[in-house]
Amino acid sequence: MNIILLSGGSGKRLWPLSNDIRSKQFIKIFKTENGGYESMVQRVYRQILTADPEATVTIATSRTQVSSIHNQLGEKVGISVEPCRRDTFPAIALATAYLHHVQGIPEEEPVVVCPVDPYVEDDYFTALKALGEQAAKGSANLVLMGIEPTYPSEKYGYIIPENSGSVSRVSTFKEKPDLAAARDYIRQGALWNGGVFAYKLGYVLDKARCLMDFTDYDDLFAKYDTLEKISFDYAVVEKEAAIEVMRFPGQWKDLGTWNTLTEAMVDSSIGNAMVDPACGNVHVINELDVPILAMGLHDVVISASPEGILVSDKGQSSYIKPFVDKIDQHVMFAEKSWGSFKVLDVEPESMTLKVTLNPGHQMNYHSHKNRDEVWHVISGKGRAVVDGLNQEIEAGHVISMKAGCRHTVIAETELKLIEVQLGKDISVHDKEKHVLG
Amino acid sequence: MNIILLSGGSGKRLWPLSNDIRSKQFIKIFKTENGGYESMVQRVYRQILTADPEATVTIATSRTQVSSIHNQLGEKVGISVEPCRRDTFPAIALATAYLHHVQGIPEEEPVVVCPVDPYVEDDYFTALKALGEQAAKGSANLVLMGIEPTYPSEKYGYIIPENSGSVSRVSTFKEKPDLAAARDYIRQGALWNGGVFAYKLGYVLDKARCLMDFTDYDDLFAKYDTLEKISFDYAVVEKEAAIEVMRFPGQWKDLGTWNTLTEAMVDSSIGNAMVDPACGNVHVINELDVPILAMGLHDVVISASPEGILVSDKGQSSYIKPFVDKIDQHVMFAEKSWGSFKVLDVEPESMTLKVTLNPGHQMNYHSHKNRDEVWHVISGKGRAVVDGLNQEIEAGHVISMKAGCRHTVIAETELKLIEVQLGKDISVHDKEKHVLG
Repeated sequence: MNIILLSGGSGKRLWPLSNDIRSKQFIKIFKTENGGYESMVQRVYRQILTADPEATVTIATSRTQVSSIHNQLGEKVGISVEPCRRDTFPAIALATAYLHHVQGIPEEEPVVVCPVDPYVEDDYFTALKALGEQAAKGSANLVLMGIEPTYPSEKYGYIIPENSGSVSRVSTFKEKPDLAAARDYIRQGALWNGGVFAYKLGYVLDKARCLMDFTDYDDLFAKYDTLEKISFDYAVVEKEAAIEVMRFPGQWKDLGTWNTLTEAMVDSSIGNAMVDPACGNVHVINELDVPILAMGLHDVVISASPEGILVSDKGQSSYIKPFVDKIDQHVMFAEKSWGSFKVLDVEPESMTLKVTLNPGHQMNYHSHKNRDEVWHVISGKGRAVVDGLNQEIEAGHVISMKAGCRHTVIAETELKLIEVQLGKDISVHDKEKHVLG
Repeated sequence: MNIILLSGGSGKRLWPLSNDIRSKQFIKIFKTENGGYESMVQRVYRQILTADPEATVTIATSRTQVSSIHNQLGEKVGISVEPCRRDTFPAIALATAYLHHVQGIPEEEPVVVCPVDPYVEDDYFTALKALGEQAAKGSANLVLMGIEPTYPSEKYGYIIPENSGSVSRVSTFKEKPDLAAARDYIRQGALWNGGVFAYKLGYVLDKARCLMDFTDYDDLFAKYDTLEKISFDYAVVEKEAAIEVMRFPGQWKDLGTWNTLTEAMVDSSIGNAMVDPACGNVHVINELDVPILAMGLHDVVISASPEGILVSDKGQSSYIKPFVDKIDQHVMFAEKSWGSFKVLDVEPESMTLKVTLNPGHQMNYHSHKNRDEVWHVISGKGRAVVDGLNQEIEAGHVISMKAGCRHTVIAETELKLIEVQLGKDISVHDKEKHVLG
């Protein structure tokens, strides 16, 4: 199976666990069999490889997510990086070209496209495989997954099939309806459109060549920023007559709000939390080191990260966005391909961070114009390079770097640093990368 | 007016704002006229000096609170430090001896004793003055304040007066009753016993000399740890026949729980907080730098400090103690006489703190057996002394101190340091003080 996972942008609906750098699909919230936690993207990736160990998985995403994807999925996963945001048609075209020109997948093979963040069981991936097989048959150019609705939702588009068979031609599409229309569609046998579909690789490649002038993946990548923003629905689906829908009767959840996300939690709390017996339907997700105590609450979600603290009635939590939009602060934590960082303290002319490097990893060789930095190694072993000079480092070592000085650190074991930044204009944008000679 | 304020021990009922070091009376929660915030002890001290600018105020407290008292009230306030906890009679006797032998107050003068944490208006302090004047008349050995009850509380002891006059002999005392008994007492004209009373200084000094063998304040202080634990009620009040009660009809609140404390808040939030319009009767006290967002909650208090986060139904908040007793962690922040510190990060063999020194102040000259320390100056100017060597310091300076090395820092302006501690057994108890030569 060739599968393209669309990994969307920065969601604020799951603040404070999602932020400008960490999208909701990277929050580790789902309990695994060994007692740890995995994120949506880790869960879906694991489920795909369980259903089909031979699957070629390509994640279509933006540059900002590459570090998190490598950190969570390792280096083997394919990534089609959009140089800038250009809506779903260019993104799917680029990923399809990547499959063909980089991964060598032939034009006759089917490709399945689905969002990276559905909360589903293993039968969903069996259905994805069947979707690809149906596309390979060639009885239609596009095969959509139609999810059997469990309630008259106003959040999804609807697909009306011609008949109630397992596979049917599509009669018509309906935009997100109001409640009454949703009820009416369901009476007509409509299915939810979850944005999941399959096609033969050559079909989308041809459509892309028609609309955008390019020779291969590298060429398309190079001119990506000149492309028009256009959705896959508008560019392809609405103009295509030969579309089939394949019915999916299994469980499918879109965990887009705290309310729906907490429904998928096995335990009532993750992290350092105490929930008193007077609480009912309370969920706590605490990424801070200090304890959260919840007492006498009902239908409440509490979520804390280095970015902030949310305490919300579960129903009310879907209205979070305008409030989070008002919050203007530094990114306080991030996962990088080499490890992670967390901001410990912010002052007008200084910032203190904790930096953790994974064993065998290193950050970019870089310099800053407007700030001095000091690293204090608090655990682990490795090597620092400062202006070309190598130095073995371990707990207790202090390395000072003036503004302009080039530096990196390479972890031998897991390596933790306290980094103190000093300067008048401390900014994440003040960073120049260099080649480590 | 000579007034002894009893400043009690570490309350856990207002966790996470109170901890083993900071008692509830030091939490800055009351809005002042200039838009800042003051603590209970600051509010009461200010109110006393407004009612009587000549008042001699002595705070009877334990060693652990001395730093906070000086930090919040300055150096002028009198402090009678109990070398160890020995209940209220030895504490009041020691403070009374301090007034006589150290402050030179004659035995004939009245002394008023009251807890440091009532939430009251100015009329209360006028009443305290009247209480002292009544004691000075000598028609009784003890004059108690009787607070007119506003509801049949089960939390307070009751005083039954002989008559309903402004001043009356006491008929009898009643322990904390159940609801029915409380209603019955109130029908009999009973008053709340708020632990406020006045006496002529010599009266308590005589009682103390009878029960404890000592010559003067210094002698009593020296043998304090040998004294028996005994309450003032048991040692004095219950054995005294000549007791009067003076009626206080004004507002008096005991802000011992989050529920009662939030009633005294002018604004619904303190610190970085957003409360959405769907919330009702929600209070947020946030001592962290990151925002708290509250949505759709009712009758809830949210309180966050570097120690942890409480989210509680207001009524439920009075049952907090057993949960907080289960929390076992480092003290994460503290006010000291010289400034404050906050723990930023804790690892098995390191700890990172932010230390703030007030201008002109310095910490003790000290050393640690089991940890190395590094200071990174992030703002301000001052002087560090390390093993007797002086060094001017300012933002950007890094000072390394190996275990065993003696060190202190003296702030010229406000001075902020990041302190990184490294060692196998990091503990607040690993500290030896030295004399700065």
